[in-house]
Amino acid sequence: MHTLLLIGIGAGDPQQITLQAVAALQRATVFFVLDKGAGTEDLVQIRKRILERHAVPDRYRLVQVEDPPRASGAADYQAAVEDWHARRARLYARLIEDQLRPDDVGAFLLWGDPSLYDSTLRILDRVRALGVPLTVQVIPGISSIQALAASHQIPLNRIGEPLTVLPGRRLAGLGRIDNVVVMLDGECAFATLDDPDLQIYWGAYLGTADELLIAGRLVEVKAKILEVREQARRRKGWIMDTYLLRRLP
Amino acid sequence: MHTLLLIGIGAGDPQQITLQAVAALQRATVFFVLDKGAGTEDLVQIRKRILERHAVPDRYRLVQVEDPPRASGAADYQAAVEDWHARRARLYARLIEDQLRPDDVGAFLLWGDPSLYDSTLRILDRVRALGVPLTVQVIPGISSIQALAASHQIPLNRIGEPLTVLPGRRLAGLGRIDNVVVMLDGECAFATLDDPDLQIYWGAYLGTADELLIAGRLVEVKAKILEVREQARRRKGWIMDTYLLRRLP
Ligand SMILES: C[S@@+](CC[C@H](N)C(=O)[O-])C[C@H]1O[C@@H](n2cnc3c(N)ncnc32)[C@H](O)[C@@H]1O
Ligand SMILES: C[S@@+](CC[C@H](N)C(=O)[O-])C[C@H]1O[C@@H](n2cnc3c(N)ncnc32)[C@H](O)[C@@H]1O
Repeated sequence: MHTLLLIGIGAGDPQQITLQAVAALQRATVFFVLDKGAGTEDLVQIRKRILERHAVPDRYRLVQVEDPPRASGAADYQAAVEDWHARRARLYARLIEDQLRPDDVGAFLLWGDPSLYDSTLRILDRVRALGVPLTVQVIPGISSIQALAASHQIPLNRIGEPLTVLPGRRLAGLGRIDNVVVMLDGECAFATLDDPDLQIYWGAYLGTADELLIAGRLVEVKAKILEVREQARRRKGWIMDTYLLRRLP
Repeated sequence: MHTLLLIGIGAGDPQQITLQAVAALQRATVFFVLDKGAGTEDLVQIRKRILERHAVPDRYRLVQVEDPPRASGAADYQAAVEDWHARRARLYARLIEDQLRPDDVGAFLLWGDPSLYDSTLRILDRVRALGVPLTVQVIPGISSIQALAASHQIPLNRIGEPLTVLPGRRLAGLGRIDNVVVMLDGECAFATLDDPDLQIYWGAYLGTADELLIAGRLVEVKAKILEVREQARRRKGWIMDTYLLRRLP
């Protein structure tokens, strides 16, 4: 039986890590860091700095591997994800079997909160199905959604009303937008909306020194967001952004 | 100008507090604790323990006041909330003016995350509108939703799909339920559903020593949840629970 800790590390601000996560960082002996190649180097660096600050020196090993790439632009999104998960499961199963000795505690440092648009839990279910016995503990972390709300100083929900969270590719199919947080929106789906009654609260690189925030009536600020976003993406080579769309009363 | 810190303290587990929150607890000199009367005594106790553990002794004052009660069972929910917010705003304005000296830093310890079904940010907007100048900082916290997902070891969303979060009273009006987190559901709205294809992940007192977890097909486990919930509520005098409803594939 292998023990694995899935540690939510927050979405960029190293202070937004919990005491429970710090304790888990001190307990783990093997950290798996999956490098997704160009652009995400910075994110690997943030993880390494978290380890240097909190983990016990000389007690842990870092296992860094290249994440199998996901077929991009595939026609069938679900099938492409399925295939990617299957390949990742085989990789994780091999890593766990090869790297964890009986007294080791393995750990994954997961961006934001482990339960939000992160595939690790699903992949570990597949690892179990491949015959690798696992005991898992999930340690929640501050998600980028919460970092967005905190930086804009806004509630995520309107009084007594629902909140919807979705990936950018699902925004167009939504019908009426009342109160929606959009993540994973490389295509800037907000820019296609012309509804004059929507307010947007946008944030990029939340919690980091590069944090960018723009808020206002969508039709009035969307050109500015597109411009600021594109400049930042060029300068840094990557961007992570998220936003809340809210219908004005 | 008064400085106020809105500190998310997590949803019950004292280890699920961030380093940023701990630093804020050490910075603040006046903590406002609003006592909602019977039943929530335990929650006031949890806050006091957090202060004893993290705040600097002899440096802070505790200002404990009774929260104005909310008219319950009012026909017009929005109007009742409006009225309650207005009364709270006057109370907060008075407390801030009376209690904060120029070099004080005030703080509210907010349950879970300050941006999720919490009225403090809205009330402080009203306090500003009453003419009390404020500088506010929001410190995110682990919400009960994340504690629920972590304890059940589940992702909150299905792959690439939306997540909806809503209060119990909005569940009935939802139409199709695919993937919904329900909070603030004193009426057990889940018990009215008969859809055989729904899975429920339920949790109460999450993160505390009294944590209760039940998961399964809704139609099969709902009677058990109702029973366990009612027993626990009687024993402790109060309950806080939340759940995820997910359509089975
Ligand atoms: C694969 S999801 C993972 C989300 C993560 N588990 C969380 O809880 O925030 C990645 C998406 O999260 C959002 N995101 C993550 N970190 C962010 C940050 N620091 N600033 C803005 N958006 C961020 C972006 O929308 C990005 O596309
Ligand atoms: C007024 S809302 C505040 C939510 C809080 N801001 C958060 O982020 O979790 C209170 C509701 O949160 C949920 N809740 C809070 N703490 C909980 C806990 N420890 N276990 C289960 N549910 C909890 C319940 O649904 C409760 O009715």
